[in-house]
Amino acid sequence: MMTATLRKQTSHDESEILALFDSLRQAHHDKDGEAIAAAYAKDAIVCDLSPPLFHRGVDAKEKQAWLDGWDGPIELDPRDFSLTVRDDVAFAQGYTRMSGTPKAAGRPVGFWLRDTICLNRTNGRWKIIHMHSSVPFYMDGSLRPAFDLEPVEN
Amino acid sequence: MMTATLRKQTSHDESEILALFDSLRQAHHDKDGEAIAAAYAKDAIVCDLSPPLFHRGVDAKEKQAWLDGWDGPIELDPRDFSLTVRDDVAFAQGYTRMSGTPKAAGRPVGFWLRDTICLNRTNGRWKIIHMHSSVPFYMDGSLRPAFDLEPVEN
Repeated sequence: MMTATLRKQTSHDESEILALFDSLRQAHHDKDGEAIAAAYAKDAIVCDLSPPLFHRGVDAKEKQAWLDGWDGPIELDPRDFSLTVRDDVAFAQGYTRMSGTPKAAGRPVGFWLRDTICLNRTNGRWKIIHMHSSVPFYMDGSLRPAFDLEPVEN
Repeated sequence: MMTATLRKQTSHDESEILALFDSLRQAHHDKDGEAIAAAYAKDAIVCDLSPPLFHRGVDAKEKQAWLDGWDGPIELDPRDFSLTVRDDVAFAQGYTRMSGTPKAAGRPVGFWLRDTICLNRTNGRWKIIHMHSSVPFYMDGSLRPAFDLEPVEN
């Protein structure tokens, strides 16, 4: 999850990767499971906010079921992403504010997460081969996820 | 963190990166804050298990204070790491079982985390420029960190 706020891009590869990230942002807004799945390599390793520890690839139907668990759009607002490209591999790192209304909660939620995204260009197309999204947890005894953090330097 | 169980390595760069990872594993075992800090670029972005969302670089004294909060060694057991190197950049991804005895807990703990590690070679030396370590959390209403997961495909 995603970004249109990277440093000024110049290369064709960078532009393609930024467009891929923006397609993910838009697909969450539109709740389009197929479009999300299309951004990933078939055997991508996905380390998501919730268990399992990882899964491989993104199944469009499973993703659609998850999207349909939200009332209205899911908004992803990227901040401070950096992008590094060398030859046919790339990685990006930054923060995303995720907000929306899970049906189970019945009220809006919003929090910042950390994203690290590794990509590969195969047959001329960039795909995500590894996505790592997370929220840290408090080690103060409460062990609660830290939904109250901002992406600022301390 | 870390690995000695990657695919068979051939290149000099890969060997250096594996040695760096192993130095981190050993430094946790030895509880050597200086050795941990030395593996990171000064302005590395570190997304750790606990807040803040990120911090820059690793301060040897702060790390030592954290290490000293554990009774005996902190063991890091890597599994299923992959490593991708292109020119002067690299990224690695895998799982690490962290175990030890936090003094505050007074009893041994152990759990699997996900690691994504991005590196850069500057002046002939590989350093970590981005570390992302996390545990997912249950979205079942409990919002507890998922300390009970294994790195297996479901």
